[in-house]
Amino acid sequence: MIRVDVELPNHAAYPVVIGALALDELRAHAPSQPFSIVDLPVYEAHGALLGACSSVVVVPSGEAAKDWETLELILSCMAHELLDRDSVALVLGGGSTLDVGGLAASLYLRGIRSVYCPTTLLAMVDASVGGKTAINLAEGKNLVGTFHQPSAVLADTRTLATLKDEQWRSGLGEVVKAALVEGEDLLSLVERSAAALAARDLAAVEPVIAECVRAKARVVASDERESGPRRALNLGHTFAHALEKVAGFGSIPHGVAVACGLALALQASERAGLLEDRSLRARVDRLLRTLRLPRSLGELRMSHGALAARELLDAMRHDKKARAGRPTFVLPRQAGALELAVVLDDATLLALLA
Amino acid sequence: MIRVDVELPNHAAYPVVIGALALDELRAHAPSQPFSIVDLPVYEAHGALLGACSSVVVVPSGEAAKDWETLELILSCMAHELLDRDSVALVLGGGSTLDVGGLAASLYLRGIRSVYCPTTLLAMVDASVGGKTAINLAEGKNLVGTFHQPSAVLADTRTLATLKDEQWRSGLGEVVKAALVEGEDLLSLVERSAAALAARDLAAVEPVIAECVRAKARVVASDERESGPRRALNLGHTFAHALEKVAGFGSIPHGVAVACGLALALQASERAGLLEDRSLRARVDRLLRTLRLPRSLGELRMSHGALAARELLDAMRHDKKARAGRPTFVLPRQAGALELAVVLDDATLLALLA
Repeated sequence: MIRVDVELPNHAAYPVVIGALALDELRAHAPSQPFSIVDLPVYEAHGALLGACSSVVVVPSGEAAKDWETLELILSCMAHELLDRDSVALVLGGGSTLDVGGLAASLYLRGIRSVYCPTTLLAMVDASVGGKTAINLAEGKNLVGTFHQPSAVLADTRTLATLKDEQWRSGLGEVVKAALVEGEDLLSLVERSAAALAARDLAAVEPVIAECVRAKARVVASDERESGPRRALNLGHTFAHALEKVAGFGSIPHGVAVACGLALALQASERAGLLEDRSLRARVDRLLRTLRLPRSLGELRMSHGALAARELLDAMRHDKKARAGRPTFVLPRQAGALELAVVLDDATLLALLA
Repeated sequence: MIRVDVELPNHAAYPVVIGALALDELRAHAPSQPFSIVDLPVYEAHGALLGACSSVVVVPSGEAAKDWETLELILSCMAHELLDRDSVALVLGGGSTLDVGGLAASLYLRGIRSVYCPTTLLAMVDASVGGKTAINLAEGKNLVGTFHQPSAVLADTRTLATLKDEQWRSGLGEVVKAALVEGEDLLSLVERSAAALAARDLAAVEPVIAECVRAKARVVASDERESGPRRALNLGHTFAHALEKVAGFGSIPHGVAVACGLALALQASERAGLLEDRSLRARVDRLLRTLRLPRSLGELRMSHGALAARELLDAMRHDKKARAGRPTFVLPRQAGALELAVVLDDATLLALLA
């Protein structure tokens, strides 16, 4: 078991526990009968790990949960169960479940404590750390949300055994992003572990999760509310959110879209003359191939249809990171060194997305 | 014009401008065409004060606006208008409008700036200061919300001219509460001004609003998230929220219910042997009478029906301030000295509410 402490200014530090028995630590971080929010397939596969909970709200799986209906359902259940300011909401599931469950916890009585139990690789390396919560609007992804830090994260790798192949690869997409944001050390670790990661070796994944969490916690500590350096974590995401939106939320797994977004960001960086490390594109290309992730928009189109350039461009204008309707991009100079707010003109973008 | 600066730890200070021309300061605090959220009667009466806004969402008046439907409407409009992280949401209306508009601003892209223009006395002295936002659930009032400080508050007293008599008196209820929380200086000022306040003298009300804002800002600065001293501001509110709920939200104006809650809190304090200033009940009774506010539950029942004791008790158990299903109360020892978390047993409460 690996323990990483997340220390943020103005917050109590909280632990991220990673390992095959992480959920056994639950009693140390939550009352004996916490209120639980669990997604349906996770509840069916791993509900027993929770032990006896006072009440469980079962929510839809994936992006489908990130809507007003589910948020309202959770909050009504919290009120119905008379949760008070000392209550703890335990959220067990993938990134979407943590997003909506965390948002509910942050809104109920203007904020109660939450304990996150991520059950996907993506949620373990990304969604569970940093305190962002969200639901989607028809106009775009994650447009409604809060910043609300959990009081503990228990990443029990037993839950990874039941992931679909696509979900596993989705998590690896965010692992590659974390490596590009963090720099050479993490990138090398991921490259060395790539074959084992592709083979879903749980022993190999634990230290990778831990380093991704450490890297993300460092960035978040420097800028919790994303006014500056935290924007680096959006590497590949302006592209990814547009891809997910145009394909229909939930159709392309988030981390798979991010992988394609990373490839596009490297291409864009090269075109814009920003890319300093000339070997980086080839390295990332090799890594994505080993991890069976899309290395280009063309590859993604083979599996997910047209994804028309004009529609992608329009989606980017609605992105949270857009300013005055102009999408902005995080682009890599080299691993660990990023430009945080590059504006690309429509012609460049259309060429890139052609 | 009076200007009070609200200074909170971890936030930029923001001004509360009070006076007959406060809205003329709008240009200094918002972009030339802000996105505006306005309640219907205010829009009809005072929309012209806003000048040209880029877009206006008109919401229902009063508690009716504090629901999921209105929140969702505002957020969808924000997304549709492509508001970005630099946008400002201008909220013009009474306390309920500020509550739901402020909540929308705090959630959109995880928080954009808001400028509050309170148009009721209640909103000027209470809702516009302190950063609490909320909507109601069927289970209780203000159960869903955030803490989100506005970047400016413009309290234009011209807008008070169109208030209904009941709304005016509702504001005075929160003025009396502010005085009991703050202590002798503010209480004396309110007593001296009482006749003028009852007569809706706008010159007399400006300094009273300013002192209420100053008093509240001081309390909030010491405890933004209500883990301790800020609870004092809930004086009378456990009773008031129960009264509003049992009567049906929106039926008893909030400040009128608070006035009755203050009378009940004084009674409860006396019964519990906590009341040190023996003259306080009579002073508050006199003040409430001058301000034409209910001085007892009996008086409120004459105008608002049965309000059965059992139902009130049940509503209190659902109150945000309840712990493990037991309602807690802020009770006064004397003006400016309060007990923050008194638990009263059911027998005492039923006797009080009989």
